[in-house]
Amino acid sequence: MASEGFRPLDEKSLVEYIKATPSLSSKLGNELDDLQIKEVGDGNLNFVYIVSSPSGSLVAKQALPYIRCIGESWPMTKERAYFEAVTLKEHGRLCPDHVPEVYHFDRVMSLIGMRYLEPPHIILRKGLIAGIEYPLLAEHISEYMARTLFFTSLLHRTTTEHKRAVADFCGNVELCRLTEQVVFSDPYKVSPHNRWTSPYLDRDVEAVREDNALKLEVAELKSMAQALIHGDLHTGSVMVTSDSTQVIDPEFAFYGPMGFDIGAFVGNLILAFFAQDGHADQENDRKAYKDWILRTIEETWNLFHKKFTALWDKHKDGSGEAYLPTIYNNPQLQLLVKQKFMKDLFHDTLGFGAAKMIRRIVGVAHVEDFESITNAGKRADCERRALDFAKMLMKERRKFQGITEVVSAIHKLHS
Amino acid sequence: MASEGFRPLDEKSLVEYIKATPSLSSKLGNELDDLQIKEVGDGNLNFVYIVSSPSGSLVAKQALPYIRCIGESWPMTKERAYFEAVTLKEHGRLCPDHVPEVYHFDRVMSLIGMRYLEPPHIILRKGLIAGIEYPLLAEHISEYMARTLFFTSLLHRTTTEHKRAVADFCGNVELCRLTEQVVFSDPYKVSPHNRWTSPYLDRDVEAVREDNALKLEVAELKSMAQALIHGDLHTGSVMVTSDSTQVIDPEFAFYGPMGFDIGAFVGNLILAFFAQDGHADQENDRKAYKDWILRTIEETWNLFHKKFTALWDKHKDGSGEAYLPTIYNNPQLQLLVKQKFMKDLFHDTLGFGAAKMIRRIVGVAHVEDFESITNAGKRADCERRALDFAKMLMKERRKFQGITEVVSAIHKLHS
Repeated sequence: MASEGFRPLDEKSLVEYIKATPSLSSKLGNELDDLQIKEVGDGNLNFVYIVSSPSGSLVAKQALPYIRCIGESWPMTKERAYFEAVTLKEHGRLCPDHVPEVYHFDRVMSLIGMRYLEPPHIILRKGLIAGIEYPLLAEHISEYMARTLFFTSLLHRTTTEHKRAVADFCGNVELCRLTEQVVFSDPYKVSPHNRWTSPYLDRDVEAVREDNALKLEVAELKSMAQALIHGDLHTGSVMVTSDSTQVIDPEFAFYGPMGFDIGAFVGNLILAFFAQDGHADQENDRKAYKDWILRTIEETWNLFHKKFTALWDKHKDGSGEAYLPTIYNNPQLQLLVKQKFMKDLFHDTLGFGAAKMIRRIVGVAHVEDFESITNAGKRADCERRALDFAKMLMKERRKFQGITEVVSAIHKLHS
Repeated sequence: MASEGFRPLDEKSLVEYIKATPSLSSKLGNELDDLQIKEVGDGNLNFVYIVSSPSGSLVAKQALPYIRCIGESWPMTKERAYFEAVTLKEHGRLCPDHVPEVYHFDRVMSLIGMRYLEPPHIILRKGLIAGIEYPLLAEHISEYMARTLFFTSLLHRTTTEHKRAVADFCGNVELCRLTEQVVFSDPYKVSPHNRWTSPYLDRDVEAVREDNALKLEVAELKSMAQALIHGDLHTGSVMVTSDSTQVIDPEFAFYGPMGFDIGAFVGNLILAFFAQDGHADQENDRKAYKDWILRTIEETWNLFHKKFTALWDKHKDGSGEAYLPTIYNNPQLQLLVKQKFMKDLFHDTLGFGAAKMIRRIVGVAHVEDFESITNAGKRADCERRALDFAKMLMKERRKFQGITEVVSAIHKLHS
């Protein structure tokens, strides 16, 4: 979008632009005949002009559709200016003392007009190199971080506001990718972009690329175990015959934690288990059926584990960007990554499964498994056992090493 | 959107709709004169019609702008049908054996036409209540979960594909909120929607509402510590004077982990620390300045901690949905929540900080702190010490109890 009408500015055309833009010319006291203009963009990405008149000043910052320091060979959306402007305005609203005011934003031109931070302002890095102390720095920067992070998080925002903003900023994907690449990926693999103080650090750089423990940690920081989940995968969302299984009703679908789906299914099987005593009668004590449910719980996780890791093995050199094959480049490390991922997913599954169980006993929507037990006292006994198990599972989930231990715990509690 | 042209269907108008819709009428062999129609929506939300002709069948499912089982008093976007249709198609493409085929989707009408899962298909929950074993269930459902979760995750997808899809599904916010409310919130507080087998479980339900450990766990499952972060908060993105601090250049902004920003700042201060020896000369050994940097690191975190938790305290009864005041309803629990959150954020900060340090030494973009040390051997010494510290910090970050320990570790390593 917004490429029609875009043109890169220079000192001369910038003056014309300012003259045609009241929100900028007013900041210069409308004294536009003798403007001083200096290009100072020493950063990596953009062109930055300081503009001053006898009675005012401003900065004009324009993004071009490539990374300035590398050149047109590394294209980069100029839409980044939009996300910068939105963030400057949002963070500025939350913390006006430490964010320069935005006077003007032109999305077509990818141009931000903003406050010129006049001397003695210098870039902090330069001050640090020069050995200058800043007595208020910690106070100021902590104020900035505390206010901007708190007020844009779910600690302050409603889910609706938060999701809307998350969706908008998903549009900043090119710069997110760049971050992922240069922070979490390239330094841990051979990449033509990497630089280091050679030859002094040649061995050190190699050691980084060979450090399995380090690579495991960095993957955890980068990766979010999210996928398009069904969102409501309980036993009422599955239709079955003895040889067919059909999953229906994914209207709660979202990109969320995988354990949410697996936990929903397993948790509802556990509910079905605890309800069986309420359905037992003279004719059928349901003992064999309870065993089948437990076996099915165990098999479901074990088969999921097997299938999921097999897919991972098969596609390990595919396009997925969570664990790049050039970083996770030896069988031992790939095994460690998978083990860690699957262990975390297992504990997520138990946690979500427990949450799903609890809400079906004390929340708004109950399950037919229990509701169809007509004797309320009997029903309550079944429900209480399920509730107690779920509470334990939620709180102790990280102590379970595998699904067999979970099934044993259900069995023990219930035998 | 899409409310113009919407009308709720009944048996009669559905026939007219099918006659006008080739993708549906063809599934009925175009034998439309003697259609059998049965409304079977026993679910909570929608209207579901089974339509059959002598030579075919289908299901027509329509979402109305409220929750069916509660009535028009609980409005709910009918756009949910869009997310259901998209997910059915996407999951169906990935796992056609276990997801019913979609024949038709009409966004304006919130209407999905899809395969009728003919008998003996029944809802799994009903089979479980009846005590029926399904020998292939674990095999099938694990196949469904493994394929749909793997192929829509970053394990398989590029960041670009993933972000685009995440943004789209952020639109399903009303149903996500509903999930949050009924799964993670209402069961843990007094809510008019809650139901339980009363009076038998009255005490049990109360115990759930008073179980601090349980509420801590459920919050972790629900909450994501995300906010609108700057995305590139190193010391080159901050302008300073002795009494002013200005944060600039947030073009990498996204909704991401808070520790990413705090870690970027702290990590770059640590880089500045390790570079000082390269800038020391006869006149100034930089010892006092190194102490100031360490103090500033310590103060930055401590002040952030203080300010952030103060904001949290001040707004604890505000609109934020991460920790609802009606659940986290006693001072002791609020303290525990904050301690856990801040501890996790601290360890995130150390991890992200370390990642930011490493990439500045071996990745594409270096920092002037080191680059301005002209003697390459001297520079490499400084860089190696910073690199070794960062590697240790990344791997051992969870062992640090507080920022003082981190500063001590830097000091010890460097004295």
